[in-house]
Amino acid sequence: MASHSIVFVPFDKAATVESDRSLLEAASEAGIVISSVCGGDGICGRCKMVVREGEVNGDATGLLTREEIRDGVVLACQTYPRTDLTVEIPEETRAGERVEVDKSAQRFRAIHPGITGKPYAKSPLTSKAFLELDEPTLENNLADGQRLEYGVNKATGISAIQAGLKVIRQLPGLLRDNEFKVTATIGRRREIAEVMDVEAGDTSSRNYIAVVDVGTSTIVLHLLNVVEMSTVDAQACFNSQSVYGREVTARIMAAEKKGAQALQELIVEDVNRLVSEVAARNSINLRDITGIVCSGNTTMMHFLLGLPTENIRREPFIATSLEPPPLRAAEVGIKINPRGLLFSVPGIGSWVGGDLTAGILATGLHEMDETAMLIDIGTNGEIIVGNREWLMGCSASTGPALEGASVECGMMAEKGAIENVRFEDGRLKCKVIGDTKPQGLCGSGIIDLVAVMLDAGIIDRAGKFVEGTHPDLESVDGRLRFVIARKTKTLKGTEVYMDQDDIDNIVTAKAAVFAATKIMLDRLNLNISDISRLFIAGGFGNYVDRTNAIKIGLLPDMPVSSIQYVGNTSVWGAKLAALSHEADDALQEIRRNTTYYELMGSSDYVEQFQKARFLPHTDIGLFPSVGKG
Amino acid sequence: MASHSIVFVPFDKAATVESDRSLLEAASEAGIVISSVCGGDGICGRCKMVVREGEVNGDATGLLTREEIRDGVVLACQTYPRTDLTVEIPEETRAGERVEVDKSAQRFRAIHPGITGKPYAKSPLTSKAFLELDEPTLENNLADGQRLEYGVNKATGISAIQAGLKVIRQLPGLLRDNEFKVTATIGRRREIAEVMDVEAGDTSSRNYIAVVDVGTSTIVLHLLNVVEMSTVDAQACFNSQSVYGREVTARIMAAEKKGAQALQELIVEDVNRLVSEVAARNSINLRDITGIVCSGNTTMMHFLLGLPTENIRREPFIATSLEPPPLRAAEVGIKINPRGLLFSVPGIGSWVGGDLTAGILATGLHEMDETAMLIDIGTNGEIIVGNREWLMGCSASTGPALEGASVECGMMAEKGAIENVRFEDGRLKCKVIGDTKPQGLCGSGIIDLVAVMLDAGIIDRAGKFVEGTHPDLESVDGRLRFVIARKTKTLKGTEVYMDQDDIDNIVTAKAAVFAATKIMLDRLNLNISDISRLFIAGGFGNYVDRTNAIKIGLLPDMPVSSIQYVGNTSVWGAKLAALSHEADDALQEIRRNTTYYELMGSSDYVEQFQKARFLPHTDIGLFPSVGKG
Repeated sequence: MASHSIVFVPFDKAATVESDRSLLEAASEAGIVISSVCGGDGICGRCKMVVREGEVNGDATGLLTREEIRDGVVLACQTYPRTDLTVEIPEETRAGERVEVDKSAQRFRAIHPGITGKPYAKSPLTSKAFLELDEPTLENNLADGQRLEYGVNKATGISAIQAGLKVIRQLPGLLRDNEFKVTATIGRRREIAEVMDVEAGDTSSRNYIAVVDVGTSTIVLHLLNVVEMSTVDAQACFNSQSVYGREVTARIMAAEKKGAQALQELIVEDVNRLVSEVAARNSINLRDITGIVCSGNTTMMHFLLGLPTENIRREPFIATSLEPPPLRAAEVGIKINPRGLLFSVPGIGSWVGGDLTAGILATGLHEMDETAMLIDIGTNGEIIVGNREWLMGCSASTGPALEGASVECGMMAEKGAIENVRFEDGRLKCKVIGDTKPQGLCGSGIIDLVAVMLDAGIIDRAGKFVEGTHPDLESVDGRLRFVIARKTKTLKGTEVYMDQDDIDNIVTAKAAVFAATKIMLDRLNLNISDISRLFIAGGFGNYVDRTNAIKIGLLPDMPVSSIQYVGNTSVWGAKLAALSHEADDALQEIRRNTTYYELMGSSDYVEQFQKARFLPHTDIGLFPSVGKG
Repeated sequence: MASHSIVFVPFDKAATVESDRSLLEAASEAGIVISSVCGGDGICGRCKMVVREGEVNGDATGLLTREEIRDGVVLACQTYPRTDLTVEIPEETRAGERVEVDKSAQRFRAIHPGITGKPYAKSPLTSKAFLELDEPTLENNLADGQRLEYGVNKATGISAIQAGLKVIRQLPGLLRDNEFKVTATIGRRREIAEVMDVEAGDTSSRNYIAVVDVGTSTIVLHLLNVVEMSTVDAQACFNSQSVYGREVTARIMAAEKKGAQALQELIVEDVNRLVSEVAARNSINLRDITGIVCSGNTTMMHFLLGLPTENIRREPFIATSLEPPPLRAAEVGIKINPRGLLFSVPGIGSWVGGDLTAGILATGLHEMDETAMLIDIGTNGEIIVGNREWLMGCSASTGPALEGASVECGMMAEKGAIENVRFEDGRLKCKVIGDTKPQGLCGSGIIDLVAVMLDAGIIDRAGKFVEGTHPDLESVDGRLRFVIARKTKTLKGTEVYMDQDDIDNIVTAKAAVFAATKIMLDRLNLNISDISRLFIAGGFGNYVDRTNAIKIGLLPDMPVSSIQYVGNTSVWGAKLAALSHEADDALQEIRRNTTYYELMGSSDYVEQFQKARFLPHTDIGLFPSVGKG
C-alpha cells in the first residue's frame, strides 16, 4: 500500500500514513486534536478540513454544502490520501488545546476531610525520608540492606520493608560515597512498604505525586507537593482517543479493531504530556514525581493499564479487573521517577468506575448517618445511593447529549459556549463563556434552554415543539427549530439553534438518568424524600441551574438547598488517597462495600425509561414542586 | 589484541580467547570443569594440559618435571595462546563431571520436624490451586481479576492476593476459553500472596520447587514434588567459579577485577544446568517448577543475585544484603517458570550465611531448651551456639586444608580419595572411595592420618615430624614426608604422601576452628561442658572419625555420643522452608534473633589461635579425654 506525506497547516505538523488511513487519523498521528464528535463515523460533520494541495479519495456527503465542496472542504474522517497532501485545518475544526481546570492551590495540611467525613492522617503513598545512618564498624556490622531498612523503620515507623534488586545493588557504592547520608523513597504497595529509590544526600524536600482523572473526554492532572501538602499546579487536555469516538463503547470497538495498544498509547501519551508540561512549568524534575494516582471510569482505566476491554460492552458486562494492584508506572509507559508507583483507584463495577469510588470518599457518603445520593453526569450517568451502613451504585447510558454532543449546536464548555439561558420579557438572554459572541450550547445551557422552552410553552411535556408559540420557532426544510442566535450574531457565522432531534436526544438522556435513579430507589424501598442530600459531581454540574434540572426531570424533586455541586470528586478523592494511606485503605473498603447494580439486568428498566420520557415525568406526582409551579 | 581458537580434546569443545587469557580460563569458557585447586595462581600444579598443536607463552615452573615439559605438558593457568591451539586435557586434570549427592527420596508428607523441633504445617512457598469459577451473569458480575482472587481465597484461605499486569491481561481470554476452569499458581512473597501464573484446565498435580545449596566448591540441587511432598531427584556439580580461585576471598577479588557479572553468570549457568538436567531426566516441564529456594554462604548468595561483594572482604566486612526479598527468578537469569519466584534463605552475617540459618532450622537449635552447637566446616568454619532463648554465630577462616586443598596430596571426596586411615600392627590401612587404588586424601582421611601419626609419635604435639619414628617417614630434598602409597600402588602413578607443610596447614585450620569456638564460648561465659549436643554439618563431616577429630583438637572434647553428623543442613533447612511458609517465617526469625559475632573484632583471637596450634591444644586441660588416653 502506498504511503503519503500529509502536511497540516497552519500547524507545520506532518504525518506519513498509508492510503487507507483517513485524514482524521493522520491529524491525530501528527498530534493535532480535532473536535470530532461522532468519532469518525461521518455523522457529525465537525471534522472539516480543506485540501490545499494533492489528490484525495472519499465519498460524497450531505454534510457539506456545494460551496464547501467547490472550495476543497472535506470531512477528514471520510477522506483518504491519494498523493502527498497539504491540508488546512480551519479554526472551528480545532479543539481547544488546553482545558481550563480548577487551579486552586488547595492546601491539604490538614487533609481535607471530605464534605462531611473525618480528616485523614498524613501518610502519603510515596514518601521520602532523609537517613543519617551510622557508618558500619566491626561491632555494628549490619548489612547495607538491613541498615537501610533499620533506618527507614526508625525514621518512619514503617516495618515490613522490601527493596528491589536494583536498589540493593547500588547501595554499597551510594552509602559509602555519601558518608551513609541518603534519602530513601518509600512506596506503599498495600501490605508492603517498598524502598523504591535511594538518592545521595538530602532530597527529602522534593517529593511530588501526580493525581489524574482519566475521563472519556477530558484528562485532568493535578500535581501535589507531598512535603507541603499542597496542589502545585493543574492542567487538562482532551482525551486523544476521541478520534476513535466520543463514547466509551465506540472506543472499545476501536480497540477490538485496531488493538488495545493503540488506544493505550494515546492515553499514556496524554498523561505523559500533562506530567511533563506541568513539571517543566514548575521546574520539577521527573525523578521527584514518585507516584501517580489514577482515577477514572472502568474502561479508561483498562485502556491506561492495557487491560482487555471487550467484555465490558457485551452482556453480562464484565471488567478485567476493578482493583489493579499498585504497579511501577514505567510498566505502562508513564514517565515519572523510573521506579515510581502507579496507584489505581479501585472501581465498583464495569460501568461505575474508580471516579465514583473517589467521589464517595471525597463526599464522605460512606460515613454519613443519613442516606445521601451522588450523581455524576457525563457520557454516562452514574448514581450512588447509600450511607455508612450500605452503598449501591449503577450506571445509565445517557449518550453524550447532556455534554453538548449529539445536539446539533452542542459544544464543550469552552469559549463561545452558551452556558446559561433565561427568558426576560419574552426575549432570550444568554451567558457566553469567554464573554464573546455565542457559537453553541454547552450542557448547562442546553438544560436551561429546554426548561425555559417548557416554561414558555414552546415545547410540551412530551418535549415536542408547539407551532406558533414563539417568533424564533422556525420551519426549515419542513422541520421546526428554535433559533437562539442568527448567523450574523455568532462567533463563526453559523446559526445557533435547537431542533426536534436535539430535544429528543436530551429527553432520552435525562430519562435514562431518572429511570436509573428511580429503579435503584425502588430496589432499596426508598422514596426521594428518604434522600437527605444530593451531590452532583463532574465538570458538567457546576453551572447547571438546579431548579431547571428538576423542572425537566433530570434531577429528582428535592429542595434545591439539599442539592450541592461538588466538582471533580474523582480528582479530589484521588488526592486524599495520594496523601493518606488511611484514605487509600478507605477506597478499598468502599469498593468492597458498594453493591454494583447492573441496570441491564433489571426487567423494569424499559418501562421506567419510557415513563421518564416526559418533562418532568409521566407521573407528575414524583415532581410535586414542578406540579405546583 | 590477537584472538586464538583453542580446541580441547578429547571433549571436542572449543573457545576463542584473546592472547592474555590463560588456557585455564579458555577451558572454563568452553564449559570444561578443571580440578584447579589454587584458582589459577600457579601453585597447586593440578591444571596440567598437553599442547598438541600450536605455540604458547608461559613462564617456567618448578611444578613440572623435565620429562613433562618435553612432552608438551603445561600448567594451564600459567600458559597463554600465541597461535590457534589444540590442547589435550589429561584425565587426571578433569574434575568429576558429577558430584554424588544424597538422593534419598525423603518424603516430607509430615514435614520433617528437624532433629528436635516441631513439625511445620504444609504450606509451600509456591502452590497451585485448580479453580472451577462460576461463569459471570448480570447478577454475579465480579470482574475477572476479583473473581480469580475470590476463587483463590476460597480454595486456599489466602487473602491479600495480588496479581501482576501480565497475569491480569491474559485473564479474560484464558477464563472464557476454558469455561472458567483454570489453575492458579500462588507464590508467597512475605506478607503478600501473588497469583504468579494462571493456566488452562487442571495442572495442579504438577508443581515443583527446586532447592539449591550454593556452595563455594559444590552446588547441590534437590527437586521437590510439592504435591507429593517428596524429593524427586538430586544432582550436584562443582561451582564453575573455582576457575577464579578456591576460596571466597579469591572470588571476590576476581569479581573486583573482572566484574561481578562474570562471576554471577558462572553460578547462574551452573544452577540452570542442574535444573534443566534434573527436570529433563524426570520429564518435568520447566514451567511446572514454580519456585527455587537458595541457601548458601553470604558471598555465593551475593554472586547469585548480582550484589556487590567487595565490602565483604574488607574491614569491617559488610554485606550488601543478608535478607534479599523474594524475587522473580528470571530477574537473575534462572530458568524455571518465567514468573517463578526465587527465595533466598536469609544470612546471619557476612561470613555466616543462609546455609547456617537453614542449619539452625533443620537441627531445631532455635527451639532447644539446652544449649547446643552447630559447626559447619568447609573452606570456612562456621560455628553457631545457642538455644531457644538466644543464638550466636561466628566464622573462622580455616583455609581449604580440611577439604583436601592446600595439602599436597589432598583431593575432593571423589574416586581414589582415601577417606579413612588407621594403623594395624604398625601398618597403615586405608579406605579408598570407589574401592580403587588411592590417589590422594580427602578431608576425613587427612584428619585420621594426623591423629594416627600423633598416636604413633610420628609427629609431636606441635605437629612436627619426629625423625626415625617410622620406616615410611622419608627425607626428600632435605624435607621429611610420610609416604602413604608408593607410585606403583596408586591410581595415577604418583606418590601419595603428607609433608610438614601439609601438617602445618592442617594445624592452622583446626586451630582457627577451635579458637573461634573457644572465644565464642568465653564471650558467653560458657564451658564446653555446658554444651549438651554438637551437630556437625556439611559434606565434610559425614565420614570424619569423631574421636580423631577431638584428638587433634578440631572438635571440642565432648562425649562422642553427643556429637552428631547431620549432613547437608543447608539443603534440608531450605526444603523445610520451601514446603512450609511457617518454616520460612522461622528462618526470618532465626536471622533476626542470631547475633553475628565478628571474630576480627576480637582482641584475643591471635592469642587463642596460637594456643590452639598444638595437638590437641596448649592447654591440655581443655581436652581431658585426650589427656587420659
